[in-house]
Amino acid sequence: MTDKTALTPATHTTPPAKFSHGVKKGNLLQVAGQVGFLPAAEGQAPTPAGPTLREQTLQTLANVKAVLEEGGASWDDAMMIRVYLTDVAHFAELNEIYDAYFQEQGLKQAPAARTTVYVGLPPGLLIEIDALAVLS
Amino acid sequence: MTDKTALTPATHTTPPAKFSHGVKKGNLLQVAGQVGFLPAAEGQAPTPAGPTLREQTLQTLANVKAVLEEGGASWDDAMMIRVYLTDVAHFAELNEIYDAYFQEQGLKQAPAARTTVYVGLPPGLLIEIDALAVLS
Amino acid sequence: MTDKTALTPATHTTPPAKFSHGVKKGNLLQVAGQVGFLPAAEGQAPTPAGPTLREQTLQTLANVKAVLEEGGASWDDAMMIRVYLTDVAHFAELNEIYDAYFQEQGLKQAPAARTTVYVGLPPGLLIEIDALAVLS
Repeated sequence: MTDKTALTPATHTTPPAKFSHGVKKGNLLQVAGQVGFLPAAEGQAPTPAGPTLREQTLQTLANVKAVLEEGGASWDDAMMIRVYLTDVAHFAELNEIYDAYFQEQGLKQAPAARTTVYVGLPPGLLIEIDALAVLS
Repeated sequence: MTDKTALTPATHTTPPAKFSHGVKKGNLLQVAGQVGFLPAAEGQAPTPAGPTLREQTLQTLANVKAVLEEGGASWDDAMMIRVYLTDVAHFAELNEIYDAYFQEQGLKQAPAARTTVYVGLPPGLLIEIDALAVLS
Repeated sequence: MTDKTALTPATHTTPPAKFSHGVKKGNLLQVAGQVGFLPAAEGQAPTPAGPTLREQTLQTLANVKAVLEEGGASWDDAMMIRVYLTDVAHFAELNEIYDAYFQEQGLKQAPAARTTVYVGLPPGLLIEIDALAVLS
């Protein structure tokens, strides 16, 4: 039997329901849908990084990365990144931010696959991202 | 060669197209998008459990669970649960129902990761859920 | 260490950002969200197969299949197919096209699981599909 382990970075806010920010079982690591919440501050409700797509996207990517690292993985292990935007008009800017971010990360392997779709999100949130990784 | 097996609980309505309610291959089990349809009744079109979010959510979770069990898995094996709601205003109630449900299930391992987004669904349906599981 | 390999069919247009049309690592193959773009033509912007759901769906399925085959897989290896439509009114027609297509493919194993939801897509696009496969 292989155990499933919850991945809970110290910086992350408590999930609003009985789910884990990430789980790892065998060589598979799943990151739950992350949004652009700033690191948790005691006695304060979860707060987005800022009102702009750029601020929220960079914080969301940092939040996904923290879960990957909590499980001993990195962006290089990511197979699939799912991006949920709220506005089709944000696509070009998202791609600019995304490319610059991954340029800085210095990937050693092929970039992950990605699907981007446009959905509704809670008020104030412009982006949500989840990821599936396979550890080496 | 490892075969891919279709998972078709006896209670489930026939899928509206050439897809399986679930498939298992090696130690991976994928549950297709389930909605709140009551157990299939001969000669009757698929019918949602009820008009409320609570009725539909509990039936949807039961339908996902039936597919997991058909493949020899349980909620403990679930890595990722994707929840599709139609209305952002349903988030808080969904979380209450979700937590109470999993409390009753008595998970022995970490809860699955989860992503919740707001999309369109066919008329009358308030929720759809799919899941990825890794068997031990 | 197992390497992650990018899958880039020669016919495919360049992704609009740092992601791969598909990646393979170990026995897992993930196909990125594909739309109904015709094979890439030099000096021409990505162009959808046609304005109808039928044209776009068949081209999208061909694009997903090309990525699977680039990784040495086939539809038989597909575990999960995610279909994103823009209009609930397209569901019945999608299912007809989907069934006829997979009938022609002559699957030897169980059909993949599937989730269909209704989202926003960039102007002119009616469908997006991604897929997860497990190689034998």
